[in-house]
Amino acid sequence: MKITTKKKKFTNPLYLESGRILEPYELMYETYGKLNSDKSNVIVVCHALTGSHHCAGHYEGERKAGWWDDMIGDGKTIDTSRYFIICVNVLGSCFGSTGPMSLEYPSFKPFRFKFPVVTIKDMVKAQKILFDSLGIYKAKVVIGGSMGGMQSLVFGVEYPKFAEEIVVLASTYATQPWAIAFNKVSREAIIRDPDFKDGYYSKEDVEKKKFSGLSIGRMNGYISYLSPNSMEEKFGRKHVETDGLYELFGRFQIERYLDYNGYNFPKWFDPLSYLYITKAINIFDVASNYDSLEEAFGKIEANLTLISFEGDMLFLPKEMQVIEDSMKKIGKEEIVTHHLIKSDYGHDAFLVELGKFDFYIQRILNE
Amino acid sequence: MKITTKKKKFTNPLYLESGRILEPYELMYETYGKLNSDKSNVIVVCHALTGSHHCAGHYEGERKAGWWDDMIGDGKTIDTSRYFIICVNVLGSCFGSTGPMSLEYPSFKPFRFKFPVVTIKDMVKAQKILFDSLGIYKAKVVIGGSMGGMQSLVFGVEYPKFAEEIVVLASTYATQPWAIAFNKVSREAIIRDPDFKDGYYSKEDVEKKKFSGLSIGRMNGYISYLSPNSMEEKFGRKHVETDGLYELFGRFQIERYLDYNGYNFPKWFDPLSYLYITKAINIFDVASNYDSLEEAFGKIEANLTLISFEGDMLFLPKEMQVIEDSMKKIGKEEIVTHHLIKSDYGHDAFLVELGKFDFYIQRILNE
Repeated sequence: MKITTKKKKFTNPLYLESGRILEPYELMYETYGKLNSDKSNVIVVCHALTGSHHCAGHYEGERKAGWWDDMIGDGKTIDTSRYFIICVNVLGSCFGSTGPMSLEYPSFKPFRFKFPVVTIKDMVKAQKILFDSLGIYKAKVVIGGSMGGMQSLVFGVEYPKFAEEIVVLASTYATQPWAIAFNKVSREAIIRDPDFKDGYYSKEDVEKKKFSGLSIGRMNGYISYLSPNSMEEKFGRKHVETDGLYELFGRFQIERYLDYNGYNFPKWFDPLSYLYITKAINIFDVASNYDSLEEAFGKIEANLTLISFEGDMLFLPKEMQVIEDSMKKIGKEEIVTHHLIKSDYGHDAFLVELGKFDFYIQRILNE
Repeated sequence: MKITTKKKKFTNPLYLESGRILEPYELMYETYGKLNSDKSNVIVVCHALTGSHHCAGHYEGERKAGWWDDMIGDGKTIDTSRYFIICVNVLGSCFGSTGPMSLEYPSFKPFRFKFPVVTIKDMVKAQKILFDSLGIYKAKVVIGGSMGGMQSLVFGVEYPKFAEEIVVLASTYATQPWAIAFNKVSREAIIRDPDFKDGYYSKEDVEKKKFSGLSIGRMNGYISYLSPNSMEEKFGRKHVETDGLYELFGRFQIERYLDYNGYNFPKWFDPLSYLYITKAINIFDVASNYDSLEEAFGKIEANLTLISFEGDMLFLPKEMQVIEDSMKKIGKEEIVTHHLIKSDYGHDAFLVELGKFDFYIQRILNE
């Protein structure tokens, strides 16, 4: 499988939902497979909060594969020998696309808080501009989970001619207070971290890779990505063997697991990006510029497949149900399908329990 | 209703589960109503993580009532004109009973990390010693929710002759990794707070009432005390009117609510106590000194009433179900009753949705 990673610069202004303008801006993206002659084999993959354009394969010398490598590759469900897959790092992120730590033109200093709040719709708009610039005007499928699912849904509503198939996993039509509350805790931990320096952290601070607020935010995030059942199955009440049960800081294995993931997170993610992307998630409402959900969904022409997970503690299956119900209410039962997957894993099931739903995606691709 | 608040000092050593010894120690407690001549009207109320001995009525000049004032008082469900109610501040807490910021004998410096880890069983043991010293050898009812429910259950197992009725609300037989994970985030936020000064915070630090780690911990706690449904009902996606939707720090109402509760928490709670009490909760396992749950529950002689709440996101109803099932397995179906309350509120239902279960408690008291 050939991996191509590119960055594209745009000098035209990007008009954002907020009324603010981003100019110039860059988008980092990755492609796999080969675009066929009639450009009919495009699959767009949208990433989640801490994801990136690197969704499959290994970079040279890299131990860890892209974030959906079990799904995407030669001979895999999303088959890179048949399809041309493209995944774009979202605006506001920290993997190459323009974000709060990018240098602002013409001062060439990091934006920091001068970076505009971008919305999910802004992220999608920028991707659409990139695709246009690449001569790609149609996609077979747009697919994504969590925040990627929000983007997918927006593609369906705002660019109804773009994709034949929209696939939304473990996501929502509008972020509910439960998810906003989880983000709140992470955001507060980041802001109150002295190393964050009120957003004016230096290159050296970043190199230390020790933003403890970001670590706490990650631990908190992990609670919402897992579930009571998956934690019980994976950790139960097992204690770290070398820690004392009556030591104040003795740890259960679930605690060590959170420590590990919290500790590593600042090595690869940026605190300001975390603030901006969670903001985009919090204010996401697919119907924000419409009178109703039904009016928004009235625009959808693609087949819409919803895949939700019973144990998802972040975006509850009933939120996906609202999408299905709204589609049916406006007579679109022919083009909406909702699969509720039996899973205890939690929100991250869309990343790890592929065997429970990949056949639905296969079916879509073989239609 | 007469409120009597007292502190009692014990000079005999308290032998803790860890093998460590607390000597001397003090217990703060509060009583309501009058002990009758044959001492047959005692009700013991056990408090939760951030609760105290002050469970009912108003202190002079106090705006806020005790934490279960809707339940306890003259003519209320737990009727102080009929019963003698006693509620003890647990060891490790910060409302007068010996805890990590108490002065250690004979140095008269705060214990801080020298304070021993106490367990739920230790908390109960100390209460039992207090009751003995007051000449109270029997209780009509021992009742508590959340961590108070753990104490209640331990009273039933460890002192089977003490109470006629044990009532456990919104609690568990052993803390599961999901709850431990929530505690973990709060504990990390506390520990990494620079004002915490690695536990060596000064009197002045305390007076500033601004431990930001404790604030974050409280926000995180609130997520687990509420539920997706209660947040949707109470806040939905309502935004703070004066905040901009595209302001990076513009807030939804759920965020303002968390801010408010987070901000206030350090005014009345101590960070070291939070670490010690969450530790006691994390390591709670009613069967820890037994071969099995069934062996532990085999000791119970009192009637055991379990009240769980469908929407409880901290201690799930299925954990209470385990208690019921274990009791039935050993032939104690006659003395166990489990009421699963239809409620979307979440864990805090035991504090706020009294109308949904108080009649069960009335029934117990009128038997």
